[in-house]
Amino acid sequence: MRISLTHQRSSTEDLSIMVDLLRASTTITVALDKFKKVIPAESVSEALEISKETGGLLAGERGGETIKGFIGNSPLQIQDYNGETLILTTTNGTRILKSLKSKALIGSLINARAVARAAVELANNEIEIIMAGVNGRFAIEDFLTAGEIIYYLRDYELDEFAKAAMIAAHDKRIVDDMILNSSSALKLKKLGFFEDVKFSIQRNISKNVPIYNGKLIKKYKI
Amino acid sequence: MRISLTHQRSSTEDLSIMVDLLRASTTITVALDKFKKVIPAESVSEALEISKETGGLLAGERGGETIKGFIGNSPLQIQDYNGETLILTTTNGTRILKSLKSKALIGSLINARAVARAAVELANNEIEIIMAGVNGRFAIEDFLTAGEIIYYLRDYELDEFAKAAMIAAHDKRIVDDMILNSSSALKLKKLGFFEDVKFSIQRNISKNVPIYNGKLIKKYKI
Repeated sequence: MRISLTHQRSSTEDLSIMVDLLRASTTITVALDKFKKVIPAESVSEALEISKETGGLLAGERGGETIKGFIGNSPLQIQDYNGETLILTTTNGTRILKSLKSKALIGSLINARAVARAAVELANNEIEIIMAGVNGRFAIEDFLTAGEIIYYLRDYELDEFAKAAMIAAHDKRIVDDMILNSSSALKLKKLGFFEDVKFSIQRNISKNVPIYNGKLIKKYKI
Repeated sequence: MRISLTHQRSSTEDLSIMVDLLRASTTITVALDKFKKVIPAESVSEALEISKETGGLLAGERGGETIKGFIGNSPLQIQDYNGETLILTTTNGTRILKSLKSKALIGSLINARAVARAAVELANNEIEIIMAGVNGRFAIEDFLTAGEIIYYLRDYELDEFAKAAMIAAHDKRIVDDMILNSSSALKLKKLGFFEDVKFSIQRNISKNVPIYNGKLIKKYKI
């Protein structure tokens, strides 16, 4: 099994793990405790359209700010709601998800171990971990989250970028400090969402493994 | 002062530090103890031409293997020679150097501290550290060497990729292990150059700071 790490783009047709720690990955993972499915939408208008069809609840942000009339892309807010369908549109994560060609899992710190295990079950011979980043830029929280997931895949054949992420994520204290002071976290702090950041850095509190089939996200049953 | 880390491409017009640990950066740093200048050449034919003009000694490799009639791109071999001019052509490092628009220093582990200090002196407001990589791919030895250099620049404004490299290079034991087992190192081992790798992972044994002016490399005098 080959494990590789990439920034934004995916090349595998086997299995991807999309990582957008703050906050799409974490929100989706939590949402699957409350909703049967999450439908990612690229645009606000697409989200509204899907909501008309499905009656699903609307959630999303642009640049971290909650879209008017939607609930936030917030792992904490989402816990106050439940239903059949959540429709989620975010600046980076949901868009990247829609560009993938492979089956995709959604990885965060709260489900790192579970997502790594499921990936090994599902992949034929290649797992590609995709950092969502922020507006095309490298985001340290996604790199370190990838590193944490890769730690659980350390017995497989890691490419050198994957190894780099794994050793960067070696010291939990440093990882926490780096994420809490990341550019994404500081932006969310300004917008009043710092509790979401603190929630997102918890390790392995969820066994939910979100799987995306090209259209919608469900809980993967091992 | 902003510090950023990039892969292969440079955008700054201020100051770059080119990192190609195995072996161009290390060879050039050592060569400046024995030669007054090093001229990087992109191709074998360009190297031969420069040698005709200058009478300089020819060194270089392609894919790690020494070019016939040249001496190796080897920090150990180079110590047996001396002269006015060394002409060096390598697969990755010297080519990237020739593509830069800024003043450039050459960084390795043996001169990490010295190169960081000189960079702060020379830059106006931006230092870009460029990982040479291998044939366009990420190379962990360049990432970790960059991280070591960035450690000496930690009081400045680091971008998140630079921070990631710095924390990945946090533990010397892990760094050594990763570099000694990197794909580049294993290739050099096969070709009989593993002593070069062991030489290259020594920290701060040289105060030489190679500076490239768009044409040739000299020792920067602080």
